[in-house]
Amino acid sequence: MTDALTARNARVAAARKLTRRAGRDAAGLFLAEGRQAVVEALAAGVAQEVFVTGSAAATHHELLAGAGVPVRLVTDEAAGGLSETATPQGLVAVCPLRDVPAATLATDPPQLAVALAELNDPGNAGTVLRTADACGARTVVFGSGSADPFQGKVVRSSAGSLFHVDVVRSAPLEPLLDDVRAAGVTVLAAAGDGEVALDAAGAEGLLGGRVLWLFGNEARGLAPALAARADHRVRVPMRGRAESLNLSVAAAICLYATQLAQDDHMRSR
Amino acid sequence: MTDALTARNARVAAARKLTRRAGRDAAGLFLAEGRQAVVEALAAGVAQEVFVTGSAAATHHELLAGAGVPVRLVTDEAAGGLSETATPQGLVAVCPLRDVPAATLATDPPQLAVALAELNDPGNAGTVLRTADACGARTVVFGSGSADPFQGKVVRSSAGSLFHVDVVRSAPLEPLLDDVRAAGVTVLAAAGDGEVALDAAGAEGLLGGRVLWLFGNEARGLAPALAARADHRVRVPMRGRAESLNLSVAAAICLYATQLAQDDHMRSR
Repeated sequence: MTDALTARNARVAAARKLTRRAGRDAAGLFLAEGRQAVVEALAAGVAQEVFVTGSAAATHHELLAGAGVPVRLVTDEAAGGLSETATPQGLVAVCPLRDVPAATLATDPPQLAVALAELNDPGNAGTVLRTADACGARTVVFGSGSADPFQGKVVRSSAGSLFHVDVVRSAPLEPLLDDVRAAGVTVLAAAGDGEVALDAAGAEGLLGGRVLWLFGNEARGLAPALAARADHRVRVPMRGRAESLNLSVAAAICLYATQLAQDDHMRSR
Repeated sequence: MTDALTARNARVAAARKLTRRAGRDAAGLFLAEGRQAVVEALAAGVAQEVFVTGSAAATHHELLAGAGVPVRLVTDEAAGGLSETATPQGLVAVCPLRDVPAATLATDPPQLAVALAELNDPGNAGTVLRTADACGARTVVFGSGSADPFQGKVVRSSAGSLFHVDVVRSAPLEPLLDDVRAAGVTVLAAAGDGEVALDAAGAEGLLGGRVLWLFGNEARGLAPALAARADHRVRVPMRGRAESLNLSVAAAICLYATQLAQDDHMRSR
């Protein structure tokens, strides 16, 4: 086996720049770290090369034997420099940034889409991406001020879903919402004080057609001007005494209810 | 105003011991950090004293003026020692540990309860606690091997819900599940490969009566022997390509569906 590449190796140094947004944008590449992300990147046929430490190579031997792309052995220190987490996994794939233009939402509206407004916690952003994928969303829009979908912690929290859905990046949301509504999509804003309860929204048939859900910041919620642009503001009814729900929890309840309503709608046609 | 207490002050030193589980158990006390937790602790009448930095005292002046318990000014360094987070809030209340015996679940079964099996990520544990509260659960059981509900990050993620629900701590789950089932509660285990889909469970009336939900570890799921002790193993149906859901997301979908079914059941009686 060849010697492990150190942090000073040119390929490693180039990959290290991808831990920062400016570096990702300049190269048009990002890092997918950990077994699950690398499996999905290879399955999607988008991984360009894989960096692995000696111990991770032993653990993931079968995966790497069938990788079909260059696998480069690196030192633990070099792998640490490629990690955006406190506990480097020793396994990371280099993948091309891939986002779709916001205009596709209006020209070819998906059955289910999600837009994130100033959702800047990467763990929440990745979790919503994962849930959106699970519930059948085709597109997730990361609006201006939201986390970068290609940042390490978002990639990790998405658990591979970043490779399954279309991502729109840094989109100004106000014109997008207007265009999407004009294309016949129902835009629903999740809001703790929304005028429609989620179960009533389902009963009234608001969830069965083409839907775009708009979710806001973890702490501040949605800006009123943005929420006002939606067709309806929807609240998750709560029986207990909690003041509010975690953002990714509220999103999950809304998206799952929509999946059920859309499945019912399909069956009844 | 008196001088700020330093980290060497005896009261501060005593409170600092509460950042560790052994210290909490020895003193029978825990720390609730940040505005939301302190508000809830004061509202619940359980806060014994509050430590605050000068700058936090200025920000939260009104809250502290009506506290009704001793408020002690501390240095930033002392406040840092009382914090279990990377960004200390400068505001923390000392509260008594309060848990209920596991036996109450069988002697006085709640309409909705949650049991956590080896759920050791504190953020997920606190989020499930918050969602359980929102959906009207009376009791949350932290089974052996789960995070300590009185640890700082659980308290913070619970967003005050720790003060709303009954907590059972370090309970061995196998005998508890048997006792609870014998008391007429339907025990449902959330499992990605469960034999019943969540929407079918609702349609078959499994969610309308008294229910205890069992949720497992973030990565490993539920141990098969434990899942086998439930009445049914329930999966969240997924239309998309995500392999699984985040644990706190799956729990939220299950608990919200149960809240809806129980509300329907109450209305129809």
